[in-house]
Amino acid sequence: MKKIKVRKEGEATFNNNWKFCVGTGRLGLALQKDYLEHLKLAQQSIGFEYIRGHGLLHDDVGIYREIEVNGETQPFYNFTYIDRIFDSYLELGIRPFVEIGFMPELLASSEETVFTWKGNVTPPNDYNKWKDLIIAVVSHFIDRYGEEEVLKWPFEIWNEPNLVNFWKDANKTEYFKLYKVTAMAIKEVHPDIQVGGPAICGGSDEWIVEFLDFCQKEQVPVDFVSRHAYTSRPPSKVTPDYYYQELADHTKMLDEFKNVKEMIQTSPFPDLPFHITEYNTSYSPINPVHDTALNATYLARILSEGGDYVDSFSYWTFSDIFEERDVPRAQFHGGFGLIGMNEVPKPTFHLFSFFNKLGQERLYRDDDVIVTCKKDGAIALIAWNLVMEKGEGFEKELSFTIPLRDGDAFIKRQTVNEDYANPWRVWKEMGRPRFPSKEMVETLRQSAKPLIRTSHGESMNGELTIDITLSKNELTLIEITPVKDETDSYVGLDDSLITSY
Amino acid sequence: MKKIKVRKEGEATFNNNWKFCVGTGRLGLALQKDYLEHLKLAQQSIGFEYIRGHGLLHDDVGIYREIEVNGETQPFYNFTYIDRIFDSYLELGIRPFVEIGFMPELLASSEETVFTWKGNVTPPNDYNKWKDLIIAVVSHFIDRYGEEEVLKWPFEIWNEPNLVNFWKDANKTEYFKLYKVTAMAIKEVHPDIQVGGPAICGGSDEWIVEFLDFCQKEQVPVDFVSRHAYTSRPPSKVTPDYYYQELADHTKMLDEFKNVKEMIQTSPFPDLPFHITEYNTSYSPINPVHDTALNATYLARILSEGGDYVDSFSYWTFSDIFEERDVPRAQFHGGFGLIGMNEVPKPTFHLFSFFNKLGQERLYRDDDVIVTCKKDGAIALIAWNLVMEKGEGFEKELSFTIPLRDGDAFIKRQTVNEDYANPWRVWKEMGRPRFPSKEMVETLRQSAKPLIRTSHGESMNGELTIDITLSKNELTLIEITPVKDETDSYVGLDDSLITSY
Amino acid sequence: MKKIKVRKEGEATFNNNWKFCVGTGRLGLALQKDYLEHLKLAQQSIGFEYIRGHGLLHDDVGIYREIEVNGETQPFYNFTYIDRIFDSYLELGIRPFVEIGFMPELLASSEETVFTWKGNVTPPNDYNKWKDLIIAVVSHFIDRYGEEEVLKWPFEIWNEPNLVNFWKDANKTEYFKLYKVTAMAIKEVHPDIQVGGPAICGGSDEWIVEFLDFCQKEQVPVDFVSRHAYTSRPPSKVTPDYYYQELADHTKMLDEFKNVKEMIQTSPFPDLPFHITEYNTSYSPINPVHDTALNATYLARILSEGGDYVDSFSYWTFSDIFEERDVPRAQFHGGFGLIGMNEVPKPTFHLFSFFNKLGQERLYRDDDVIVTCKKDGAIALIAWNLVMEKGEGFEKELSFTIPLRDGDAFIKRQTVNEDYANPWRVWKEMGRPRFPSKEMVETLRQSAKPLIRTSHGESMNGELTIDITLSKNELTLIEITPVKDETDSYVGLDDSLITSY
Amino acid sequence: MKKIKVRKEGEATFNNNWKFCVGTGRLGLALQKDYLEHLKLAQQSIGFEYIRGHGLLHDDVGIYREIEVNGETQPFYNFTYIDRIFDSYLELGIRPFVEIGFMPELLASSEETVFTWKGNVTPPNDYNKWKDLIIAVVSHFIDRYGEEEVLKWPFEIWNEPNLVNFWKDANKTEYFKLYKVTAMAIKEVHPDIQVGGPAICGGSDEWIVEFLDFCQKEQVPVDFVSRHAYTSRPPSKVTPDYYYQELADHTKMLDEFKNVKEMIQTSPFPDLPFHITEYNTSYSPINPVHDTALNATYLARILSEGGDYVDSFSYWTFSDIFEERDVPRAQFHGGFGLIGMNEVPKPTFHLFSFFNKLGQERLYRDDDVIVTCKKDGAIALIAWNLVMEKGEGFEKELSFTIPLRDGDAFIKRQTVNEDYANPWRVWKEMGRPRFPSKEMVETLRQSAKPLIRTSHGESMNGELTIDITLSKNELTLIEITPVKDETDSYVGLDDSLITSY
Repeated sequence: MKKIKVRKEGEATFNNNWKFCVGTGRLGLALQKDYLEHLKLAQQSIGFEYIRGHGLLHDDVGIYREIEVNGETQPFYNFTYIDRIFDSYLELGIRPFVEIGFMPELLASSEETVFTWKGNVTPPNDYNKWKDLIIAVVSHFIDRYGEEEVLKWPFEIWNEPNLVNFWKDANKTEYFKLYKVTAMAIKEVHPDIQVGGPAICGGSDEWIVEFLDFCQKEQVPVDFVSRHAYTSRPPSKVTPDYYYQELADHTKMLDEFKNVKEMIQTSPFPDLPFHITEYNTSYSPINPVHDTALNATYLARILSEGGDYVDSFSYWTFSDIFEERDVPRAQFHGGFGLIGMNEVPKPTFHLFSFFNKLGQERLYRDDDVIVTCKKDGAIALIAWNLVMEKGEGFEKELSFTIPLRDGDAFIKRQTVNEDYANPWRVWKEMGRPRFPSKEMVETLRQSAKPLIRTSHGESMNGELTIDITLSKNELTLIEITPVKDETDSYVGLDDSLITSY
Repeated sequence: MKKIKVRKEGEATFNNNWKFCVGTGRLGLALQKDYLEHLKLAQQSIGFEYIRGHGLLHDDVGIYREIEVNGETQPFYNFTYIDRIFDSYLELGIRPFVEIGFMPELLASSEETVFTWKGNVTPPNDYNKWKDLIIAVVSHFIDRYGEEEVLKWPFEIWNEPNLVNFWKDANKTEYFKLYKVTAMAIKEVHPDIQVGGPAICGGSDEWIVEFLDFCQKEQVPVDFVSRHAYTSRPPSKVTPDYYYQELADHTKMLDEFKNVKEMIQTSPFPDLPFHITEYNTSYSPINPVHDTALNATYLARILSEGGDYVDSFSYWTFSDIFEERDVPRAQFHGGFGLIGMNEVPKPTFHLFSFFNKLGQERLYRDDDVIVTCKKDGAIALIAWNLVMEKGEGFEKELSFTIPLRDGDAFIKRQTVNEDYANPWRVWKEMGRPRFPSKEMVETLRQSAKPLIRTSHGESMNGELTIDITLSKNELTLIEITPVKDETDSYVGLDDSLITSY
Repeated sequence: MKKIKVRKEGEATFNNNWKFCVGTGRLGLALQKDYLEHLKLAQQSIGFEYIRGHGLLHDDVGIYREIEVNGETQPFYNFTYIDRIFDSYLELGIRPFVEIGFMPELLASSEETVFTWKGNVTPPNDYNKWKDLIIAVVSHFIDRYGEEEVLKWPFEIWNEPNLVNFWKDANKTEYFKLYKVTAMAIKEVHPDIQVGGPAICGGSDEWIVEFLDFCQKEQVPVDFVSRHAYTSRPPSKVTPDYYYQELADHTKMLDEFKNVKEMIQTSPFPDLPFHITEYNTSYSPINPVHDTALNATYLARILSEGGDYVDSFSYWTFSDIFEERDVPRAQFHGGFGLIGMNEVPKPTFHLFSFFNKLGQERLYRDDDVIVTCKKDGAIALIAWNLVMEKGEGFEKELSFTIPLRDGDAFIKRQTVNEDYANPWRVWKEMGRPRFPSKEMVETLRQSAKPLIRTSHGESMNGELTIDITLSKNELTLIEITPVKDETDSYVGLDDSLITSY
Repeated sequence: MKKIKVRKEGEATFNNNWKFCVGTGRLGLALQKDYLEHLKLAQQSIGFEYIRGHGLLHDDVGIYREIEVNGETQPFYNFTYIDRIFDSYLELGIRPFVEIGFMPELLASSEETVFTWKGNVTPPNDYNKWKDLIIAVVSHFIDRYGEEEVLKWPFEIWNEPNLVNFWKDANKTEYFKLYKVTAMAIKEVHPDIQVGGPAICGGSDEWIVEFLDFCQKEQVPVDFVSRHAYTSRPPSKVTPDYYYQELADHTKMLDEFKNVKEMIQTSPFPDLPFHITEYNTSYSPINPVHDTALNATYLARILSEGGDYVDSFSYWTFSDIFEERDVPRAQFHGGFGLIGMNEVPKPTFHLFSFFNKLGQERLYRDDDVIVTCKKDGAIALIAWNLVMEKGEGFEKELSFTIPLRDGDAFIKRQTVNEDYANPWRVWKEMGRPRFPSKEMVETLRQSAKPLIRTSHGESMNGELTIDITLSKNELTLIEITPVKDETDSYVGLDDSLITSY
């Protein structure tokens, strides 16, 4: 049994950067009813500040069109759908972290696309038209939402230009050109709007250095640096339905956070904010790891520590309503989402909702535990038991000594593990129905709630001891609240007079 | 371990009479928002057909008033509130089981009242005015809701006239007079409206006999017989907050059902329907037994068998929003309600919601178990472990052999016991807060859900075996559904390639 | 002034066939939140029974896919989205009138498409795969929704195969082949499912005759005949934003209903039901006539009489959320919808909601008026003043003599005309904002309500006289209800004692 | 025609004190669903900051009770209902303006009561118990809602102690004693809570002077002065249903505001805020004037000017859900409410919602008009035509010259008068149904909306001219917004190609 003695004085303020942003399937999906209901659920239980997704300029949102006037072609900017989408976000209390991309078909220089939904990933065929588009779009945002609001929105230029899938030939020079034109167009609308890049995925961090050098040399505005982070290895098997990968150690992600942060600190812009605009275990939208309890315990330490190294890190994504690998083909299909199809929360959803219960003051932290104190004196701690090996067993015992004023305490423990809040397991027991009936969905939702156990403790000499056992890949939230005991106010109370008590 | 072999062929249709009606605090409370939200919850999870409560003619609903016209006093009938109340019921899919009473102050012959809210329990000071009132009220119901609807509403005359609390001097002759005048007034409005009585509580069953004789002799209409049933003994202790009583054996209630049924069968009206218009363990609105898991296991057999003896039995009451013993003074105060203050369901709520999941065909029943089959071939069974003794232990093991077509089965088990779906226990751990904060209420609601466990079984040779252990006063619902296995449709599926699986 | 004397006895039952079905943009749009809110509004105010749209098999719904298994290509049927769509319809109380089409890309024999959303309009490249698809889809519907439900859904094969836009080369022989294979595949799933065609638009009615002959000769099942009807002439001007056309006389549509009905009656299947599965003034989704009050008065007679000639006629479409000509580019863009963007009802919406208030018994009808009687004795009449000429004036005066029992009557008149319930006019006053602000939308919604005027009338000698004036293109609903006067129940009432009265 | 030339420069900030507070029936009614729905409607359209009503300590809220412990009587404070009530208020965005009263039965010194609901109006039988009660109540508020919140709530001691109905013998000395004990008890809980009085009705303003002198002399805390104001004369007729009164000139109310303000300014506490904690035309809850359009035009000037003289004035009351004169006996019964039974808004509701549309800057004001400018440059003006004489006619013509930048303007006019937004008239046409059917209620609600007319204007030389005619007792809101004309963006637009245009 591991003994953990929590100090009374907080060692630091707990950093909420994990909550800054969350990822989404392409923006056009935000017209959907189910998408918005999933987002509402996420906002109620977690409350992210920003949301980031691809496809602002994709043809399904339909912003860029052309018309012929007197035999001459003119651009036509259509904001019907993007207004509806951003209106919805703001109504749900979440702001866009704007990603500029991909290329509207009419502005594309060639035909390379990415995803089932065919996002065009080529440079503009005419940088002047592109510039005009950017100016029109950003100006419209200010017209509709006001300057004060839009100044709060970061604008990130493109997505993973270091990959040929996402940017033709992964052409760095061309990306820097796109960045420059776009950033300057945005600043032309308002100099205080924040712009940044290069939004690369891991594996090519030299882009960061060169990007910042480029910005300095060419006097191109840059207000933040962005990068992605995934920890899965190459696929071990690919089937029509699933993509299997092993995971690297989760410290790999924290190391990447730190390394790139250092690169920035030694760059010409040492103070730039650094946003991880995507992260997850696997980068595949059909890797079943996303549906497991392991996914939650694996990422727990990232939420616990990540904010110390980066200004934000944005889980990719909040919902399985997502079409990069086609319309989802089963209730559980290995999607990125915190929330699965039919509004069934997965274990990782609770990772986030548990972290949302932590207090501002951090009392203790190690690799598997974080203990915090809330303003009202209550204690909230999260513990996890990450086990990447196969097989049964692997239980872990922890004994906490918690500083608490003497007297009664109410202890509420919520558990996510293989047995509870694990609808993926339940779904397998059901025979893996691809398109479950309403009754099945109801059972999955009921099963997706954490196990709740409460008890009564007593603090003596300023300390309360709590012993817990964590099963394999269990994630647990424990909230400890001093009790104001009103029992004595019930005159003549005697439970023993109740039959059977 | 008790072995239970369930037959394939149903022994009978399972009788849903437990669902016919539920009790409520006085009708005036139905103007309240919280009351209506509790009722909505009950209707969603259970779906009673009728609702019965006191106070239709009490002065807070305000139907009977008088005005002076040219120096002469005239009755004025005010339907503002009763319309709102019955509109609300019908919108929630529940019909009134109308109880005629108590006496409007202006028609009262003296000042005796019952309850904190002072329902006047005296005969009318003028039977003609009373008759006019009844005719006006029933006519208004038909005007507003239509004849077809009102013919579905039973009208019961008064409440427990065999007790001095509820009827001045418990005067039987006077009651029979009231019954006659009222029943005939109702029939004057429409001869097919159902009227009945005498709505007595236990202990004076001779009233039943005399009442029916009276009806025959005087040719007074009677369409049903009604009576109440409680099984608690005299109080062992009474405090300002609680009323403690021991409980009789629960077979006492079933015996009463049967005995009175026989009285009717040997009366001049042998075929009259028999409604238990109130029942519960204790008749006190501040007996903590109502908040316990025992209350659910104690009543389980009543729901399981009661419908075989009586045409309906109406649990008293659906909600703790109730004022007979003043405004409730604590979150848990021993109220009758299935649903406690702040919309926290109690164990007995789940007794009803579990029974609502049973199928139409009964395959097996004993004193502690009922097994049914649904139309779609799924099995639903409820088992309970009633323990009226004090102390730990008392576990019970059951082994079911269930007839099921060969193949996989999905097993969903829901549990209510001392540990789960028992918010009363959680509230005690919190220090019994009388007026809990919103955070406390949230925890109580979360804790009020049954524990859900699912598993996968396999039926061979037409039989599936399920072994369960019931803890003390556990109530469990098990639903077994044949599985249509789609696993093979996932080409190349291999869970072992997921990290840790 | 035209005098109209309404008889007391109904001349006929008023035929509600106008309410049977309504059109929708392609099914994939039914995933959208706004679409579903518009449909909810339509259902609340009108309550259509069925909904018909294109795109069941289009790739955005994504039903037909292929996967490779052991090097072999297999079909994969994905019902994720269609389940969500049909679930939504049924929850809103509307059933699918299923249109089979267009061709999934993987089954297409060539590349011809229609609409901005590129529906493929070519025959299958493999009729066996097509047949398998149809069987899979229909079987899934029965699995999910049950046989009883699906037997209520008509299945129509393809859309307007007589036009090259909608069917490659408008190849009749190929259509008959498609029809045969598809109809027989459906009947293979269940012989009682209703199938029909040929879903042609006007101008090629010989298809009807040949289609029915084909069915007889080849013994192909056919349960109904379908056709479309629009009354606009060729375009007078086409711009990037609008398509202008003159309208033919509206009797043209009724004549088409009658003529085709006669064709069927003289065919080998004289008793087949005849469904007009699309109709409107213009067939263009950007013709501003759809936004006008004229559109409502023009179609009023169609709703009033059409049901006498055809078994249903389905207004194309309920909402401007529609993408055949791209994402809508302005608040009012000449879309087909009863409901415009941002949930603003147009005049024609009220045409339908007014007809929904008519009674079952028709007392009078001419070309501009219909008078009905409801079960409760109330009178509901609709009058309209269709004026297709330009300019001011054109008022019409009508004097109705209505049979009504003597006494007071309450008269409620609702008006839609150029001044009221005409948000298109208000929008023009606003400067035709393409993407209106929330404040503008609020004003448009407020302005979209009919003018309501009420008054008090008195019927003498069994007759009530009502004189009304209709402005140009006014549509008015008048409801006349006998009054049960309670004024005398207010003792001492004297309004003259109120200041200023 | 009266010509009004509005200046460009604002003459003052328009004072929103009319919006500070609104009155309510006794707090116990706030448990009702309909009450809360009416309040929600008021908050959506108007958005008051505070709500004030009687009955905090009345026995239906049930705060003060006594229990026996070991033969000794102890107070028991029950916060079950008041928590529910204040929770509801805060959820609807409105704070309590707390009125301390009336006397719990157990603390009453004698039996005098007021209203059908029998509020006890006698001094406490024991000032120590009273003080303990006040301390318990205020302490509980701070426990539950937090100090920051409760410091925003004014606490007013009692209601109209200068009337024998409301305070036994209207005993001034006794009131001062009650005030002192109560105010000091409140300050004992927290010295910064605001306390005030004497909450008198008009006719005894010497109380104000003496009250302030008393506070000074006795060093009793006082943070604000409060008084009521009604302008009706003695009743001309009283019936069981209605109470008829003439109205004084509405300037009487403004004069009272000013006079008392001056009294305060010459008192020992010259800077104290002055709150009119009740005002209306008639003080009777069954005076039909409250249901009329006159009530709105009569009070328009009070809203327009009142804020210049007093710190707030609180309309008595927001809803007809009110029981001072028994349960309401008819749909319209002369209740105080802005909103009538069945959620039907009355003309005065729109007076408030119109004022809520005014801008911050006042450009012009006279006795019948107020013109304001909003932040976005839009103009909002309200004009009214108060006519207290009987008979037809009395139209008033106004011509406004409005300063507006050159170009197009959108003009939106909303009208409330005898014909529109006057459900009382419609209800009379219906035969004054006391308990209207759902269909009738629907018609009343539809009829309760203001007439909306929009048009297009053009400003030249910085001025826009608008001519309007006001009918008798018409109240009109006109909003004028500069138009950003997008018409030219529609290439080739030609409305004349639309049939009939």
